[in-house]
Amino acid sequence: RWPCRDTLLQGFLQKNNSLEEKGRLAGQKNLLSCDNSDRDARFRRTETDFSNLFARDLLPAKNGEEPTMQFLLEVVDILTNYVKKTFDRSTKVLDFHHPHQLLEGIEGFNLELSDQPESLEQILVDCRDTLKYGVRTGHPRFFNQLSSGLDIIGLAGEWLTSTANTNMFTYEIAPVFVLMEQLTLKKMREMIGWPNGEGDGLFSPGGAISNMYSVMIARYKYFPEVKTKGMSAAPRLVLFTSEHSHYSIKKAGAALGFGTDNVILLSTDERGRVIPADLEAKILDAKQKGYVPLFVNATAGSTVYGAFDPISEIADICEKYNLWLHVDGAWGGGLLMSRKHRHKLNGIERANSVTWNPHKMMGVPLQCSAILVREKGILAGCNSMCAGYLFQPDKQYDVTYDTGDKAIQCGRHVDIFKFWLMWKAKGTAGFEQHIDKCLDLSQYLYNKIKNREGYEMVFDGVPQHTNVCFWYIPPSLRGMPDGDERREKLHRVAPKIKAMMMESGTTMVGYQPQGNKVNFFRMVVSNPSATQSDIDFLIDEIERLGHDL
Amino acid sequence: RWPCRDTLLQGFLQKNNSLEEKGRLAGQKNLLSCDNSDRDARFRRTETDFSNLFARDLLPAKNGEEPTMQFLLEVVDILTNYVKKTFDRSTKVLDFHHPHQLLEGIEGFNLELSDQPESLEQILVDCRDTLKYGVRTGHPRFFNQLSSGLDIIGLAGEWLTSTANTNMFTYEIAPVFVLMEQLTLKKMREMIGWPNGEGDGLFSPGGAISNMYSVMIARYKYFPEVKTKGMSAAPRLVLFTSEHSHYSIKKAGAALGFGTDNVILLSTDERGRVIPADLEAKILDAKQKGYVPLFVNATAGSTVYGAFDPISEIADICEKYNLWLHVDGAWGGGLLMSRKHRHKLNGIERANSVTWNPHKMMGVPLQCSAILVREKGILAGCNSMCAGYLFQPDKQYDVTYDTGDKAIQCGRHVDIFKFWLMWKAKGTAGFEQHIDKCLDLSQYLYNKIKNREGYEMVFDGVPQHTNVCFWYIPPSLRGMPDGDERREKLHRVAPKIKAMMMESGTTMVGYQPQGNKVNFFRMVVSNPSATQSDIDFLIDEIERLGHDL
Repeated sequence: RWPCRDTLLQGFLQKNNSLEEKGRLAGQKNLLSCDNSDRDARFRRTETDFSNLFARDLLPAKNGEEPTMQFLLEVVDILTNYVKKTFDRSTKVLDFHHPHQLLEGIEGFNLELSDQPESLEQILVDCRDTLKYGVRTGHPRFFNQLSSGLDIIGLAGEWLTSTANTNMFTYEIAPVFVLMEQLTLKKMREMIGWPNGEGDGLFSPGGAISNMYSVMIARYKYFPEVKTKGMSAAPRLVLFTSEHSHYSIKKAGAALGFGTDNVILLSTDERGRVIPADLEAKILDAKQKGYVPLFVNATAGSTVYGAFDPISEIADICEKYNLWLHVDGAWGGGLLMSRKHRHKLNGIERANSVTWNPHKMMGVPLQCSAILVREKGILAGCNSMCAGYLFQPDKQYDVTYDTGDKAIQCGRHVDIFKFWLMWKAKGTAGFEQHIDKCLDLSQYLYNKIKNREGYEMVFDGVPQHTNVCFWYIPPSLRGMPDGDERREKLHRVAPKIKAMMMESGTTMVGYQPQGNKVNFFRMVVSNPSATQSDIDFLIDEIERLGHDL
Repeated sequence: RWPCRDTLLQGFLQKNNSLEEKGRLAGQKNLLSCDNSDRDARFRRTETDFSNLFARDLLPAKNGEEPTMQFLLEVVDILTNYVKKTFDRSTKVLDFHHPHQLLEGIEGFNLELSDQPESLEQILVDCRDTLKYGVRTGHPRFFNQLSSGLDIIGLAGEWLTSTANTNMFTYEIAPVFVLMEQLTLKKMREMIGWPNGEGDGLFSPGGAISNMYSVMIARYKYFPEVKTKGMSAAPRLVLFTSEHSHYSIKKAGAALGFGTDNVILLSTDERGRVIPADLEAKILDAKQKGYVPLFVNATAGSTVYGAFDPISEIADICEKYNLWLHVDGAWGGGLLMSRKHRHKLNGIERANSVTWNPHKMMGVPLQCSAILVREKGILAGCNSMCAGYLFQPDKQYDVTYDTGDKAIQCGRHVDIFKFWLMWKAKGTAGFEQHIDKCLDLSQYLYNKIKNREGYEMVFDGVPQHTNVCFWYIPPSLRGMPDGDERREKLHRVAPKIKAMMMESGTTMVGYQPQGNKVNFFRMVVSNPSATQSDIDFLIDEIERLGHDL
């Protein structure tokens, strides 16, 4: 739309140093003439010559301010161009290369590190190459992961966060961020439905760590002596989670010393939702064997099917047997923002702890995951070690704001700002619109393929979340009777289509087997830039690539 | 130096949209006139009117490209101004306010979230306010934390990382970053001295998590059945670490089910270094009690004293008793980059695992911590759960590059790029210079105060790392005989000076008690922008603020 603008800006970014040196007339010419097709190359070399500049010439170097600004603005130019292209459907989602190709130094992109510095010119080339050979996770046709999209406000928030470059452990060095975290967590607890938003919480480096926290604090609640004496101070404890739940519950079981054998998997209905009666039967079975049931994880939005376990019924059972109820809403927690969809999490207000990843359904840049806890003080009780060098009680301010000792981490990255800024910029209403739109889009996909020739749904009915799971059946398999041969062939269809998709770079969607079901596509929509036409494109692409298999 | 430049750039960033609309002459005037002191406010409102723009007007909105670019460039303007000021000694390190002051909404800075969106103008104000009330951790006089400084290349790397917004779990969606991580970890292992840089590793969300990994994999090495059966499958295991070591070893003991009582603290000499004979005695004692020694942590650069445990002698004992040797080099690992100082870590090549945080001594922006392991495959053995939806074996590329299942996390933030880019830009030689310079500076401080009136050193001799620990004795205490009264008074000196320092905002340095030693200052230098004059300033400031206490 502005044919001259980028050239202008680029020229300006390169040239504003020399502007003052060369005087106004020259500056006017460079800045305002559109007829300068060969100017870029020449001017870059002669005027802001990054080939003779090195990291050591930047701030804090003497006279480093000007090259620093030039360099940062040049980087920003690279990044803003990338942002523009990310949203441009005429660009590829990725430019696929095999590991050995990239390692061999494709087109001069050399990943090896060396003893001697490279020029800033080379560093800028490295930045461009890094983006060129990466994957555009914000592209409207990237559907590969639960986290997708590129939120501009979130991006600005991340740029600011890295510029502030501080650490969440004390109010002393992160006063604003610590307060933002506190206020945001309170708001999230209000949405969960805990009275007055009371309780506790932290942002952690991801849903797996948040889930690990939930198991740790459950153990601390019922067997606080484990903190000092270890697992030998407790009876044989067992944890319950759905066979469809995220593997992080098992990972937590392994890491925290429970053992994966003591993570008991619950059966689900054909939609992937836990069957409450199975939970109760397995609790009774465990008790009979002399084990002690401790913890139940209910998944709100499972990874593959997007299933919501029936939280209220599970909560009844947890109350009956006095068990800790955790809700893993890493993927589905965002639906609490939607008046239309939040009923899928009914009962979450009865949970003892909740995992909720704004970096998934809410489009916040990675990483942004919260562990929320109903009981105040238990996080600190579980994790504090009272390190004197960090958490001095004799500071001049209210040290209850020093939250670091609640964490299993010491240093903790500032994950809150981008989320806080997005919330400010969109309002709760904006998140709601985003979520409703994504769910509408996935229903559009579901309606489009449920009766379409060549498709089979993995489970019946409208998906609860944005996950749409389906097989594409190539014409060669359509008449074939069910049986091992068809199953084996069908199992290879999704990987083949996916491989071709990646090599053509047009779109990306995930696939996986699940239980006894052979490889199927799992479509998810969390990308705010996706539209119905992108869904149509995906289907066309699957059929184009898979037709002759 | 360039009186007109910032105004020019700022003007341009605000105005380049309207340039095309208003024609060249108007553009020339705005861009090139320096005589426009009242232009900013007017033009911001009338031309790029962010007060009528909202997040929903940015990409992916229709016609969103132009406001997106305008908004991002405006944010960059805020950030580059912050960067400039960060290095400017005439600015404050912080503008201190109490939590309640910020929560009350100081000068209109409202931290509360609401249902409705705020305009982009307000969002930009929020960004400015966030930086205004924060702490400049890159300021040449910020000495408060092991992580300090603002590396421009690292900052550019972080901006790019957040623009790419992807996840480390698979090669599929982070091809370049996964390879960079692999090559960088290999380079780090070479520096440790493991043959051919063989081994394994990961970047984790911080040193505490890296240390936790080391304990987990040690346990898996000797008692792999704990993964499935839990701690009840193992005898009573004990871990050994210095009484001066980081509290994360104890946190790991608590979290992983060992119990803090089974983390046995080793005595140190007066410089804070583990006494090897004490380790051997405590191993024998534990064995005699029927416990099973598993793991020894040697600290390379302790948090408070900067002490390096004698790794070789500890390695001898670990070999003799067949124990896992971990080196926590979170703080001191960077010294491996320095030919002059790496001898302090002699013996590290005998370790089974190493924690090394480039975000501390090497000035890489937060978060950047590596866990390095000598034995290949053990990380995956310990942590893999083989989730089918993520780690499909039937992909078209070599899936050994899908490293996600080695981690306890699922999603994992891209921490590698900024570090890789800094290494490219500085070379190993540049890191070496940085480290040597910081150690020289701390020796300058040590030499300056060791015999100066009013100072007492916490331990004798040249510090091993950049940590210089000292008491400032106000004149009122100088004649006082040692005893409880003096101790109590001295204990209150550092907190008082620190509080005044924060309120005046001129510099920041940490203090803490340690063992039976009352509060003392711990000076550390990792900030590349610090000079001798900043050290002088710190001493002057301590004396100015503390003289009348």
